[in-house]
Amino acid sequence: MTQDTLHPSDEQLNPSRRKFLNSAALAGLAGAGLTVGLSACKQEAAAPAAAPAGAAPAPAARAASSADAVHLKPGELDTYYGLWSGGHTGDVRVLGMPSGRELLRIPCFVPDALTGWGITNESKKIMGTKPDGTLRYAVGDTHHVHASYKDGNYDGRYAWVNDKINSRVARIRLDYFICDKITKLPNVQGFHGIFPDKRDPVDPAINYTTRVFCGGEFHVPLPNDGRDLENPEKYRALFSCLDAETMEVRWQVLIDGNCDLVATSFDGKLAASNQYNTENGVHFQDMMSAERDACIFFNIARIEQAIKDGKFTTIPGSNVPVVDGTQAANKDPKTALTATVSVPKNPHGVNASPDGKYFICAGKLSPTATVIELQKVLDWFDGKLEDVDQTIVAEVELGLGPLHTAFDGRGNGYTTLFLDSQVVKWNIDAAIRFHNGDNTAQYVVDRLDVHYQPGHINASQSETMFADGKWLSVGCKFSKDRFLPVGPLHAENEQIIDISGEKMVLVADHPVRPEPHDFIFFRRELITTKQIYSHDDFPHAILNPNDTGVFRDGNKVTVKMTSLAPVFEPKEFKLKRGDEVTIILTNLDRIEDLGHGFAIPDYGINFVVNPQETASVTFVADKPGVFWCYCTHFCHALHLEMRSRMLVEA
Amino acid sequence: MTQDTLHPSDEQLNPSRRKFLNSAALAGLAGAGLTVGLSACKQEAAAPAAAPAGAAPAPAARAASSADAVHLKPGELDTYYGLWSGGHTGDVRVLGMPSGRELLRIPCFVPDALTGWGITNESKKIMGTKPDGTLRYAVGDTHHVHASYKDGNYDGRYAWVNDKINSRVARIRLDYFICDKITKLPNVQGFHGIFPDKRDPVDPAINYTTRVFCGGEFHVPLPNDGRDLENPEKYRALFSCLDAETMEVRWQVLIDGNCDLVATSFDGKLAASNQYNTENGVHFQDMMSAERDACIFFNIARIEQAIKDGKFTTIPGSNVPVVDGTQAANKDPKTALTATVSVPKNPHGVNASPDGKYFICAGKLSPTATVIELQKVLDWFDGKLEDVDQTIVAEVELGLGPLHTAFDGRGNGYTTLFLDSQVVKWNIDAAIRFHNGDNTAQYVVDRLDVHYQPGHINASQSETMFADGKWLSVGCKFSKDRFLPVGPLHAENEQIIDISGEKMVLVADHPVRPEPHDFIFFRRELITTKQIYSHDDFPHAILNPNDTGVFRDGNKVTVKMTSLAPVFEPKEFKLKRGDEVTIILTNLDRIEDLGHGFAIPDYGINFVVNPQETASVTFVADKPGVFWCYCTHFCHALHLEMRSRMLVEA
Repeated sequence: MTQDTLHPSDEQLNPSRRKFLNSAALAGLAGAGLTVGLSACKQEAAAPAAAPAGAAPAPAARAASSADAVHLKPGELDTYYGLWSGGHTGDVRVLGMPSGRELLRIPCFVPDALTGWGITNESKKIMGTKPDGTLRYAVGDTHHVHASYKDGNYDGRYAWVNDKINSRVARIRLDYFICDKITKLPNVQGFHGIFPDKRDPVDPAINYTTRVFCGGEFHVPLPNDGRDLENPEKYRALFSCLDAETMEVRWQVLIDGNCDLVATSFDGKLAASNQYNTENGVHFQDMMSAERDACIFFNIARIEQAIKDGKFTTIPGSNVPVVDGTQAANKDPKTALTATVSVPKNPHGVNASPDGKYFICAGKLSPTATVIELQKVLDWFDGKLEDVDQTIVAEVELGLGPLHTAFDGRGNGYTTLFLDSQVVKWNIDAAIRFHNGDNTAQYVVDRLDVHYQPGHINASQSETMFADGKWLSVGCKFSKDRFLPVGPLHAENEQIIDISGEKMVLVADHPVRPEPHDFIFFRRELITTKQIYSHDDFPHAILNPNDTGVFRDGNKVTVKMTSLAPVFEPKEFKLKRGDEVTIILTNLDRIEDLGHGFAIPDYGINFVVNPQETASVTFVADKPGVFWCYCTHFCHALHLEMRSRMLVEA
Repeated sequence: MTQDTLHPSDEQLNPSRRKFLNSAALAGLAGAGLTVGLSACKQEAAAPAAAPAGAAPAPAARAASSADAVHLKPGELDTYYGLWSGGHTGDVRVLGMPSGRELLRIPCFVPDALTGWGITNESKKIMGTKPDGTLRYAVGDTHHVHASYKDGNYDGRYAWVNDKINSRVARIRLDYFICDKITKLPNVQGFHGIFPDKRDPVDPAINYTTRVFCGGEFHVPLPNDGRDLENPEKYRALFSCLDAETMEVRWQVLIDGNCDLVATSFDGKLAASNQYNTENGVHFQDMMSAERDACIFFNIARIEQAIKDGKFTTIPGSNVPVVDGTQAANKDPKTALTATVSVPKNPHGVNASPDGKYFICAGKLSPTATVIELQKVLDWFDGKLEDVDQTIVAEVELGLGPLHTAFDGRGNGYTTLFLDSQVVKWNIDAAIRFHNGDNTAQYVVDRLDVHYQPGHINASQSETMFADGKWLSVGCKFSKDRFLPVGPLHAENEQIIDISGEKMVLVADHPVRPEPHDFIFFRRELITTKQIYSHDDFPHAILNPNDTGVFRDGNKVTVKMTSLAPVFEPKEFKLKRGDEVTIILTNLDRIEDLGHGFAIPDYGINFVVNPQETASVTFVADKPGVFWCYCTHFCHALHLEMRSRMLVEA
């Protein structure tokens, strides 16, 4: 038992709230007597000080009009769709923006008792089951949602989200807003960052997403079967590439250190991941021992050529080709598969600017952001640069605890400062000039207090070539006193900020279940949704109430059912105790929003059938008696009377 | 297979949206050629017509100030707490009102991957497990939330919510906002309505809630063990009473027909339930065959005296005393345990007016509301009335599909009209005068279109003696075109209405996951919450990092752990494959909002420990390898580095 760092100080145990804001988020560092390596942020003399909380300092007229824009009148529709990670609820949230209203949660990695996700046979097949038919996983931890691209903008086909706990990727169809495939990454633990490519690195005709990149965060023995438990120097992390259509894992890259967030270039040539644990440390003090960590770049075309050339291995238990992306194996830039650019201490976050020129890495334990120019990275791969760190065109101080950066399409970045509880707006060109010695370059444009401890940040269309600079959303990890108290588990606070002007204007606070992480939001016209299913989607659909009934084959029984408000057919059905029963239910209603639920008391079954949808469940009729199967989804004036009677003979 | 009602008409299959609003919610009635018994609503000549949608017809100034009141500025706190049913998500939602923002979801009946509800040993004990340790139930269907009373107002101790699917009652502690007990009702299926009493019927010193009443909706054989499957005439429903403190079932009442919603009188003497299936029908057309159904009243003091006197039976498998509340056994009013007042066709909803005088039953398939005077019900029990229906003091037409009624404390009711998609404001005294023959009494005060098909409705403080007539919330079952489309599964639409003036003003639309049912909201000062747990709540708390470690007893292993940002202790622990492991984790952080999560990859484990909370999980270490247990709940600048390493030897 190591106890060296764990005698809580008085300061930790009796902090005032304000003191906490300024210091306690660092508790355990100073308190532990460690070298934090966190230099005080010398705010550049020319930069404006932080504005007080709230909208007060902005022009009153703009604050009022911003508020009108986010506070929609009854019946007004939002301008943007937002896709939000659901955090350890394991789903994807769909928001209307700028109102911030949650329109839908899409179950992915975790069962959902509302829709029957994890209960119906159709959803269990997507989620994955053990040999006994129960779900393989019932927890998840989603962090990042990103959507498919075409010509540098979202194309409305798919979105992807990661599950960090069990190293899974889920795909969302953006017509029906449902999860249609889930893939587990082999030999990856703590899968964190995810990003689709934006075009093919080689074929100009493929101007859309065909790959999804996944960063493995925790390093483990390969394979992780009990070997090398006590030899952390043998632990390794992998960077993975999925096929966007088939969702199969195409290839993996063995790297030094770990991956964290992932970003991709608009030209399709590069993917990148920030690395906070280049030390391969196993304790937090080891993970923060180096003064500089890194951002690793992957040369997609070279990796795929290497695989074509057979230059890969496989890890026992998986047949995914694995190429060697370690620094030792990639010393010659002209053949290197990866480039490792140094970035100050434990960076968290890498983001691609919408002009296609830069990747920004924030320092987390350094008060700096590092600006890396993509063309220079390509130059390095071409052997034109002596030192890979010559790709860094700026490294400037922003404030304490910088994490993620969003963009407005006008050359500015907006970076969250976790420790300062601020968003800082800064001009990238000015930062480059300042970095090059121009001390008059005022790269910090504005600062805004947020509430509190912001993590992810994004702006309308920020990660496309069409960033429109209108709205910023900030995910604040602590809400503290911003909402009525509701016991120990606080909501997070998603704040909406108007960035259309020079100064940022805080417009609204929205509480949200902890803890969603990353998100995107984009113009509503980029998606075309379908509100009614097609029977063609369901080979087992029961198209006519005349085809309903009980079909028995020994003790295997199929009950074919239909719903048409306010009637289930059949109105009753009889089973024998011990029967293995499959109920197939088709909703014949074809009116938008006219779904039904189907619950069986005491049998653990409830699911929704949307208009024209078919769903099925399988269970053993192990309890005799009368069971009123009833509609759980309000449908009709006679909703309460909408039932079918299941009779199980003893 | 019965097919008599199920040849969908062209009209059903190709409806226009507007036509649907007006007719399709009745689909299957007219289409089935049944006698609907739904008389057209002759709107009383003097009543105002419905206002157009939106806030337009109200004075512009009031609409604007209403909007300001619900659209809080950043950092502004709400005035009311709202407790909302979570529907078939199986939880309770906590809202701030009038903003309508969701502050928390409290898991009750269904596992919650965010908090670890259904994963930790502590939550599994509350939820209930099978002999093999897995959860007994993983679905739920909550409908009604009500809170404990004292002196006619909420007292901030408890709330209760029902699970219709599995006939369970959950209790919420209103200090920590957590579920602390769940009770399953014996011999009840389809448990729908729930309401606490407001004082004791006999002892004036008990001026607070000590009982919770539960209405059984589906009639089943008693016991439901396979007997009488084909004899629906033997099916029966029960009305149940729980002890508010112990959560044990005190007694049950056998009744004719079914129960639906439940209400209680402010004097503690009566509980009531509307009955939509007095026919004991098993098909929907049977359930709507009678022109009048009923509202049944329970005389609490007499029921409890009967039990003291030994006048009860029990049902095999349960030792809960059951008294006979059927009409045949209760013909003499002076000894009757129940009184059955007739109410038109399939009523849905019964509500007690805040002046303590009336219960309102809405007709659903009749366009009427029935006003029953409580003093007259007591008079009937005293033998002073010849006919129990003389307790009806008004029965007036309101519109099509009346369901639930809220109150403003100024003598007005607000009733949802499901088919008309309206809320109607009506004056109860005027309705009584109209019923008594005064044709000049204009009881309808205002109508407002809502969007669409409203179900439950409630007003600020409406179900207390302190109804304040400020805000109305309406749960609309269909949202259709009110939000950006998100595929087949539409949100419901919770609309907020200003009722402070003569005319109602629609102020905001809020999308919500389907489908929450009932809710209450009340002044925030009625609750005092605690944001930090006490170690005294957890007998197994590990109070000092020095006490952490691995404690082995054969293959049973206890791992004692602590969290203190950003460190878990121990930083690593070793297990043998096949060990039965219990991890006990105490969060030593005591700063408000500083919780941690604890996830084990591939082991199906994730849970939250709030400040000073202890939680535990038990699992078999069946997979060898290195597993990084990590913090899933953002806590600190070194959150990503906050891990403990679990080594499982092969």
